[in-house]
Amino acid sequence: MRFGRIAHPEGFSFVVVDGEGEENLVAKEIKDTPYTEPEYTGREWPLADVRLLAPTLPSKVVAIGRNYADHVAEVFKESAEHLPPTLFLKPPTSVVGPEAPIRIPEFATKVEFEGELAVVVGQVAKNVKAADWKSVVRGFTIVNDVSSRDLQFADGQWARAKGIDTFCPLGPWIETDIDSFDLDNLSIRAHLTQDGVTETKQDSNSNQMIMKMGEIIEFITASMTLLPGDVICTGSPAGTEAMNPGDTIEVEIEGLGSLRNPVERA
Amino acid sequence: MRFGRIAHPEGFSFVVVDGEGEENLVAKEIKDTPYTEPEYTGREWPLADVRLLAPTLPSKVVAIGRNYADHVAEVFKESAEHLPPTLFLKPPTSVVGPEAPIRIPEFATKVEFEGELAVVVGQVAKNVKAADWKSVVRGFTIVNDVSSRDLQFADGQWARAKGIDTFCPLGPWIETDIDSFDLDNLSIRAHLTQDGVTETKQDSNSNQMIMKMGEIIEFITASMTLLPGDVICTGSPAGTEAMNPGDTIEVEIEGLGSLRNPVERA
Repeated sequence: MRFGRIAHPEGFSFVVVDGEGEENLVAKEIKDTPYTEPEYTGREWPLADVRLLAPTLPSKVVAIGRNYADHVAEVFKESAEHLPPTLFLKPPTSVVGPEAPIRIPEFATKVEFEGELAVVVGQVAKNVKAADWKSVVRGFTIVNDVSSRDLQFADGQWARAKGIDTFCPLGPWIETDIDSFDLDNLSIRAHLTQDGVTETKQDSNSNQMIMKMGEIIEFITASMTLLPGDVICTGSPAGTEAMNPGDTIEVEIEGLGSLRNPVERA
Repeated sequence: MRFGRIAHPEGFSFVVVDGEGEENLVAKEIKDTPYTEPEYTGREWPLADVRLLAPTLPSKVVAIGRNYADHVAEVFKESAEHLPPTLFLKPPTSVVGPEAPIRIPEFATKVEFEGELAVVVGQVAKNVKAADWKSVVRGFTIVNDVSSRDLQFADGQWARAKGIDTFCPLGPWIETDIDSFDLDNLSIRAHLTQDGVTETKQDSNSNQMIMKMGEIIEFITASMTLLPGDVICTGSPAGTEAMNPGDTIEVEIEGLGSLRNPVERA
């Protein structure tokens, strides 16, 4: 099941996105949130007539950095053995939905995309054992962990470089059928369009993840309680590159569709 | 005016704390939140009969690290010139109120207190100029930026070392009379009680701040939109030291009273 959040002529709603084929998708309004079994209100819209928003408004976005060995090598010029995965936070105010512009302020230079598989938490989660990770997950979505590479290294701490308003595109929806994903072989790609030319820049696979899903959730929840709607960014594979105003970036993950955002000057 | 949040026999309320002298304080319930002019419900309790909670439930806690030259020297063994102030985030789930235990998990070693002046945001704030900082601030409170010094250096990123549940004691209330504070000469102290003996460990002054209040708010809001209730931790002076289960830590700031928390093993 795919849970989304939409803007429609009468307001905002949580919906189930139903149907097959991009042109036949329907957004069916639900009474509550995506964290319980859906009850339908009866209102529905063709998806093409409404606007998808970020599917969750997280109380926190917890991210695992340096979780793909190939990306560690390209960004940090060090082997992953010497720089193990680490944890950082992106603020809720950085979250935007599909097609919302990524807005780059003048001082944020070398702003790169990072296409990642994201987890949406479904239950209050503390001290979860790796083997039990599925019990606290509502589903998967796509995140673009937008990062000013220059600020990231200048600041040392990554919160500002990765926490600027609009630097956390999220969507298009939460896919709850997590058993349909093969986490040992999931394709993650990012396509950058510059001057009308689209090139595939990231073309990797979740089999490159250093810390696996169960470990990630055990690691985070040993320290922090996760709440329903919270988001975990599981790390970016190699291929990240700078974006400029006028570009469009699209992250594509098998089974989740794609998350596309234009880039603008703030 | 002092805004607090309390647990009382019938539930939770935002209150104005009124009266002079610690024994005569009264918690007067308000209809809405601390971000508008208070309307009283008429219910009130002697403060001694209720429990103060963290005065705000922030959507984010933005913190300035390395903002006191003496603390930079003691922790980083470097001069502040070579390590300028930096920005990091603490998750909302780390926030607790006065007298709530700081709970230290086994893996978080060398857990130190950091007594700091905290700002509570009162208005949606983006691109605020330094000179206008007061217009977006609802008031001041005290924060203890609890930090596992070992995890902080092992992880590189500080989010986990400073983001563990209970590692952000906040309170006792929001003092809105910000003009009553002399930010060029504000006493900040922390008293640690171990084995029944209390010693003053931090005894510094806001005049040691490298980045001043206006600069801090301009710096943060150039990147991130601040929302009402969000908290800014303005940095810790020197004197931080490890705490152990059984200890009690009390941070005291002129004009704000004190924030006291016992320390426990999680």
